[in-house]
Amino acid sequence: MKAVRLQTYHRRPVIEEVPEPTVSGPFDVVVKIGGAGVCRTDLHIIEEQWAEKSGVTLPYTIGHENAGWVHEVGSAVTNVAVGDTVILHPTPTCGLCPACRAGNDMHCSDNAFPGIDSDGGMAEYLLTSARACIKLDPQTQPADVAALADAGITAYHAVRKAVPLLPPGTVCVVNGAGGLGHIGIQSLAALTATTIVVVDRNPEALVLAEQLGADHTVLADGKQVDAVLDLTDGNGAEVVLDFVAEQGAQQDAFAMTRRYGSHFVIGYGSNIDIPTIDIISTERSVIGNLVGTYNDLVELMVLAEAGKVTLHTKKYPLDAALDALADLDAGRVRGRAILTP
Amino acid sequence: MKAVRLQTYHRRPVIEEVPEPTVSGPFDVVVKIGGAGVCRTDLHIIEEQWAEKSGVTLPYTIGHENAGWVHEVGSAVTNVAVGDTVILHPTPTCGLCPACRAGNDMHCSDNAFPGIDSDGGMAEYLLTSARACIKLDPQTQPADVAALADAGITAYHAVRKAVPLLPPGTVCVVNGAGGLGHIGIQSLAALTATTIVVVDRNPEALVLAEQLGADHTVLADGKQVDAVLDLTDGNGAEVVLDFVAEQGAQQDAFAMTRRYGSHFVIGYGSNIDIPTIDIISTERSVIGNLVGTYNDLVELMVLAEAGKVTLHTKKYPLDAALDALADLDAGRVRGRAILTP
Amino acid sequence: MKAVRLQTYHRRPVIEEVPEPTVSGPFDVVVKIGGAGVCRTDLHIIEEQWAEKSGVTLPYTIGHENAGWVHEVGSAVTNVAVGDTVILHPTPTCGLCPACRAGNDMHCSDNAFPGIDSDGGMAEYLLTSARACIKLDPQTQPADVAALADAGITAYHAVRKAVPLLPPGTVCVVNGAGGLGHIGIQSLAALTATTIVVVDRNPEALVLAEQLGADHTVLADGKQVDAVLDLTDGNGAEVVLDFVAEQGAQQDAFAMTRRYGSHFVIGYGSNIDIPTIDIISTERSVIGNLVGTYNDLVELMVLAEAGKVTLHTKKYPLDAALDALADLDAGRVRGRAILTP
Amino acid sequence: MKAVRLQTYHRRPVIEEVPEPTVSGPFDVVVKIGGAGVCRTDLHIIEEQWAEKSGVTLPYTIGHENAGWVHEVGSAVTNVAVGDTVILHPTPTCGLCPACRAGNDMHCSDNAFPGIDSDGGMAEYLLTSARACIKLDPQTQPADVAALADAGITAYHAVRKAVPLLPPGTVCVVNGAGGLGHIGIQSLAALTATTIVVVDRNPEALVLAEQLGADHTVLADGKQVDAVLDLTDGNGAEVVLDFVAEQGAQQDAFAMTRRYGSHFVIGYGSNIDIPTIDIISTERSVIGNLVGTYNDLVELMVLAEAGKVTLHTKKYPLDAALDALADLDAGRVRGRAILTP
Repeated sequence: MKAVRLQTYHRRPVIEEVPEPTVSGPFDVVVKIGGAGVCRTDLHIIEEQWAEKSGVTLPYTIGHENAGWVHEVGSAVTNVAVGDTVILHPTPTCGLCPACRAGNDMHCSDNAFPGIDSDGGMAEYLLTSARACIKLDPQTQPADVAALADAGITAYHAVRKAVPLLPPGTVCVVNGAGGLGHIGIQSLAALTATTIVVVDRNPEALVLAEQLGADHTVLADGKQVDAVLDLTDGNGAEVVLDFVAEQGAQQDAFAMTRRYGSHFVIGYGSNIDIPTIDIISTERSVIGNLVGTYNDLVELMVLAEAGKVTLHTKKYPLDAALDALADLDAGRVRGRAILTP
Repeated sequence: MKAVRLQTYHRRPVIEEVPEPTVSGPFDVVVKIGGAGVCRTDLHIIEEQWAEKSGVTLPYTIGHENAGWVHEVGSAVTNVAVGDTVILHPTPTCGLCPACRAGNDMHCSDNAFPGIDSDGGMAEYLLTSARACIKLDPQTQPADVAALADAGITAYHAVRKAVPLLPPGTVCVVNGAGGLGHIGIQSLAALTATTIVVVDRNPEALVLAEQLGADHTVLADGKQVDAVLDLTDGNGAEVVLDFVAEQGAQQDAFAMTRRYGSHFVIGYGSNIDIPTIDIISTERSVIGNLVGTYNDLVELMVLAEAGKVTLHTKKYPLDAALDALADLDAGRVRGRAILTP
Repeated sequence: MKAVRLQTYHRRPVIEEVPEPTVSGPFDVVVKIGGAGVCRTDLHIIEEQWAEKSGVTLPYTIGHENAGWVHEVGSAVTNVAVGDTVILHPTPTCGLCPACRAGNDMHCSDNAFPGIDSDGGMAEYLLTSARACIKLDPQTQPADVAALADAGITAYHAVRKAVPLLPPGTVCVVNGAGGLGHIGIQSLAALTATTIVVVDRNPEALVLAEQLGADHTVLADGKQVDAVLDLTDGNGAEVVLDFVAEQGAQQDAFAMTRRYGSHFVIGYGSNIDIPTIDIISTERSVIGNLVGTYNDLVELMVLAEAGKVTLHTKKYPLDAALDALADLDAGRVRGRAILTP
Repeated sequence: MKAVRLQTYHRRPVIEEVPEPTVSGPFDVVVKIGGAGVCRTDLHIIEEQWAEKSGVTLPYTIGHENAGWVHEVGSAVTNVAVGDTVILHPTPTCGLCPACRAGNDMHCSDNAFPGIDSDGGMAEYLLTSARACIKLDPQTQPADVAALADAGITAYHAVRKAVPLLPPGTVCVVNGAGGLGHIGIQSLAALTATTIVVVDRNPEALVLAEQLGADHTVLADGKQVDAVLDLTDGNGAEVVLDFVAEQGAQQDAFAMTRRYGSHFVIGYGSNIDIPTIDIISTERSVIGNLVGTYNDLVELMVLAEAGKVTLHTKKYPLDAALDALADLDAGRVRGRAILTP
């Protein structure tokens, strides 16, 4: 089959023929890919940012945001059958460690992250496990929902954690209205009655944000911290969802956070550097966020099927994978780029 | 009356005569001080670290950790009467703002912090409000419990927030076993069955820590991060209570924190500087902590009266206040220095 | 001034002249009533159901759901001023007991409940306290929002407690779509993405329920338990909000509750009688609910001002109070009857 | 092998030869039983109380509280190996349904409950699954800990749910200090600093309760409700853990519960019958409890290995199973009867 393979860091991946994966363990599942999302993390992988953390050996197939149809199942698989339409939780998990037993799938002590530390989904077929599969309505087109498998679950997971902090009368800043941010806005609107303030450097992104549920928008023109303080009587926001967290945005995001508030870090790239006296004198917190649980993705699919979360996607055939990566890198993608192998 | 007054930053306070405070508002309470704690924050105030944040005008009376006996009450005070033994929550509050209405006293939008931003308790009498008073058993000696009014409540508040994260089988690191840390250890032992690991650079403090409930102790000799990782199968601790947060301890504390764990900042002094990729790839959080609620102090007094939290104190007459400050600065105080006016 | 006074149990109240209330304590507030809701509890008071619990001495003025304008304030009142438009939390509270200090106003150990255990608001003026006042936009008409002061806060409080149990994919049954239920439906729609199933014996109420956000409606024709089970694959609902809780509805509500689910009792009237083996073998719970906190009412006013919760009211002059009570008793009121003194 | 088989309801079980179980599925595990607890539920099963709920077909082997050594494992089992010492979570679960994915094992939509709805552990060998096995220190004697597998987990689960309601200054009533209650007392003492009040009709049980951590004991002589109210200034307890819930104890337990408090039903037998006006006017709740999660049992084993929870057991060989059942029925067992096959 064809697959998008990274052979050398800092060079473009190559589309080449590799053997199709097959089931070996009783819980293995092979999925025929219908949609594979193209993510900024793919660019970071190519740039070698993840090399040490993932420990992956090159060459390998990238693509960590996948949906498709079940193609083959192991002997003990009961939750899906050949032909089922599925979206895949990004981490096949053991189901037996303390994290799995508590529902914190992404902290499984034995997890794999296909597309990051093993062969991923920018290919015709992907090997995963029964525990990663969420069965969908057969009418669903995998390419339409694939972006929920990583961008979606990540934004939703952060919103879900923030909901208890966001009763009516509070303010939530969405810092960055790109691929993740626009799912975050819709999730906030579906799950809370908080006042949503969206900050972005792109005026077009702010127009879309308003259509998706933003109550206020702020152009990130250098005065965005003051603008958020002005909107909140000088107090800042109870929660800032920071989908950027690089190039100074992470410092701004903390500065926009109210006394006793929480700065949720979701994007990444730069360091955050804060005087501890500022942390304790205001009791502010910096909250890490990583992908999401299997149940987070199940809930997000409920919102998607109800039309409460919609996606803007741009589709490319598998052969055009390098164009998709280049378009993403150049800022030419509105919403999410999806390969359709 | 005599009071310990700061007249000039970076110079020693002066003990001088000032008028006694009197009640004017219906909820005012004047307390005859029985014990006033001496805190590292007093040193930081003298060093001008709090000048901008507090906005206080010199000269003023320091002392923000107080207990004593009610001396005079305003016309509408119903919860205490003249002669009652009381410990004082550090912030007289309005009782009407959203934070007060939710029980988050220390985030009152109209709070005062006597001893930090207005006249404090290193004096014969202190003006406070009915809402700051907790009535104690008349047998209690104020000087014996005064240290709970700030050091105690601050340590307890952080522990109380951490309790849901610390079921049996988890590990909690106490980073720093000084005045606050030794209350933190006892509070953890009273409220959880977590494994308590105490880190300090002072071997004597570690001996005391073991007596108070530490399961393991680690000397902070430069290899403390590795030592904590060794004790936790390389994982780190679910919670690190960082009572130091300066001179690199804050970086160590984050490094000791487990995937999906929380680094509670309670001490202060230096900046914390972390790559956002480390925050998100492990979903770790940095949690701010500030003093505590009125109900936190009520609960801590229950533990104290049951003998589950005990204090090591060294008492000084009011006239020896400068000796107490000098002893604290020079590391000559075991436990907490208390003035007994 | 004129007031609606209950002189004898089981007889109609009388409209008569009584002295206007005046402030005496420093936190007293006298409010000129702009709207006083008429509630089923007023009928129950007349029927002597509350006599023992309230301990009230007849005659007294009923009316426990009030909004208006501040008319006179005590010497220490700072949060409202004469002329302010206010809605009143139903229980003036002490602000000092453990419940108040935790924000649980309705469990104040020293609370009063005007209109139930002391003179209420079916009159030209009402004596309350500063702590009960929520200042509103001066444009707000008190008669338009008065029903939120008791019916609204009670429904909202229950919904607010249920929110953590109602992520996407769950089902919430609203049992009874009357005065409280229709606020409950709107609050659920504003704060969750749960599937809302409304049960009522009145087909018109179900039509209104759909307009307000119900996803499914079920006529309570004797087969409502089966109908809810059919809608939920035989499982029942994660949460049943039981606004009726009398005449068998309370038994049905428990039967509609899913394994590991919660039956919220909000209405009252009959006994609930359940085999303990049914409680433990399914781990279902029965959750009591009482009015709500001050902050609950603040949040509800945010939803109301944003147009997310709207009220259907029928207004009567104070002189027509007995007509309003009669109309309510006879089922002739759509939404809530409001007196406008 | 020998097994204790129920052949006819209302008649004594029979010890007879049956085939040994063997693994068939990839996750199957056969355990050689080292200890099988004898529980009041076994008597209720014989009395036909569970016939309809369990749907089990007679004859079958009872025994739902088991520990032992792994004897044979399926092809995909990775978490335990032949020879490992294990305690068994009572319900082998699917690991794939929403409840399993959230860590609520006992609500697995596909669970089995060996000893209740299928062959249990009063036998030489038991068939279970990998997901039910908790690996123990090889030094542990299964017969010493088997009682934690059902009695223990059930008491611990209820305590664990109650912990957030039990900060210092609160009161928790343990209603019934038998097999479950005495684990409940120890779990409360390990996880909270609440005041523990134990109620039992047996004076000897109260003596043991004091040794295990009770702060006060109350003889259930008909005046126990008043005694609890006297101990709590007339208020009742924040939490009542009702390990009896039959023959009127369930009504007493609710009456001992404070305003805004929670009555946890853990035992069973009779109906609970409460006026809904009592539920709503005090906002009290009745909380169902069922066994516990896998992680609950893991945590409890941590407490047991630390010596914080100890068990009183009386051991019988498998051949004496009928004696054990008779002793339990006659009240001749202190602590828990354990078969050692």
